Amino acid sequence: MAFEIAMWHIFQFPLCPFSRKVRLLMGEKGIAYELQTARPWEGEDRLFEMNPAGRTPVVRETERGTVIVDSRAICEYFEETVDRNPQISGTAVQRAEIRRLIAMFDENFYHDVSGPLLHERMKKRLVLRQSPDAKILRESMKLAHDYLDYIDYLIDNRPWLAGATMTLADLAAAAQISVADYLGGLDWSSHEQARGWYLVMKSRPSFRPLLSERMEVIQPPSHYAEVDA
Amino acid sequence: MAFEIAMWHIFQFPLCPFSRKVRLLMGEKGIAYELQTARPWEGEDRLFEMNPAGRTPVVRETERGTVIVDSRAICEYFEETVDRNPQISGTAVQRAEIRRLIAMFDENFYHDVSGPLLHERMKKRLVLRQSPDAKILRESMKLAHDYLDYIDYLIDNRPWLAGATMTLADLAAAAQISVADYLGGLDWSSHEQARGWYLVMKSRPSFRPLLSERMEVIQPPSHYAEVDA
Repeated sequence: MAFEIAMWHIFQFPLCPFSRKVRLLMGEKGIAYELQTARPWEGEDRLFEMNPAGRTPVVRETERGTVIVDSRAICEYFEETVDRNPQISGTAVQRAEIRRLIAMFDENFYHDVSGPLLHERMKKRLVLRQSPDAKILRESMKLAHDYLDYIDYLIDNRPWLAGATMTLADLAAAAQISVADYLGGLDWSSHEQARGWYLVMKSRPSFRPLLSERMEVIQPPSHYAEVDA
Repeated sequence: MAFEIAMWHIFQFPLCPFSRKVRLLMGEKGIAYELQTARPWEGEDRLFEMNPAGRTPVVRETERGTVIVDSRAICEYFEETVDRNPQISGTAVQRAEIRRLIAMFDENFYHDVSGPLLHERMKKRLVLRQSPDAKILRESMKLAHDYLDYIDYLIDNRPWLAGATMTLADLAAAAQISVADYLGGLDWSSHEQARGWYLVMKSRPSFRPLLSERMEVIQPPSHYAEVDA
């Protein structure tokens, strides 16, 4: 009898922060995955057939054909089905704190920082063939400071963003931050606690595959993939 | 010995679709709550002290002072702590489908329909003292059709949005839709399945307190609170 190994495919593109969060979670939990490129801005049928919302990431399991859509639904799914290395852990109040921070980075940080950077530095270059708007870049870098300040504050009070252990909040924040950092949108000076926390995150084996990837003609700054302070 | 009853306060405003979702969930689960008005656009210290992201809803329990932030974190919290009438139920795959639809209405529908309607019809009237932009209103009403089409399609195939039972997906969708409907952004003609589903939702006891509320000078269309077809 053949022994079938479930294999997950992640439909994503290298600078999708939500796909990065899912990849980090799967890496931490030791769930094997293969990457499939999906570019939401090209309106491919394949992506829309799996996800009517037309967004990345989507994960599909090859054996049974199970398709899971939406990065938070995917993370909750793996958390419920794979016990190893729980990332939404603790009491109900602690789990709420983890999910609060996930929402802050998935929604607010993406809206204020990584989303505008992706639009100005990736979409305008690859799709619209326009130059980035310097005013929008400055505004997103200014807002990024507030988030790094908030991480400084959290790390002054806790070992990890949501409390005593590393959780999905750290992975969600690091995923968004890694995209902003790739696109040159972060100034780490005067953010020692945030910088120290992020260096630890970058050093994790789950992070290595992300740091070595490049998005076509767009190059990250030299410090992007460095894991030594 | 005094017998203390835990009481939750919800910090919200009447047309906040995310607060409506939380109120519907608490209503369905039989969790008592009192309303506290919070207006994110006024930048009140009280809201920002509880939620650095400055958003509604926030819930606070009076006895222990527990504060839970972010509408999805709040719903997961009550789902984990109150067993009665589960709203994120079933297998892991079914739970993922519920969460996919919650994300679609919380994120996509809000971005395309209820968010622009709130900006044009509420914020411009109450805060900015401007007239709504007719082009944006037309575009959001056009996009609303696509979502009502999708609900028609789901209800053609399932009794409820996510499957065989009512879930948080129905509550999240009805919460967003009720705000769009209040603001006159929905044309229900040619959406019989969606209309039938929404009439059932409006008839639930959990929905009644929402339908009777009014947001200051802004009045809903006459059909808004009707529960008879």
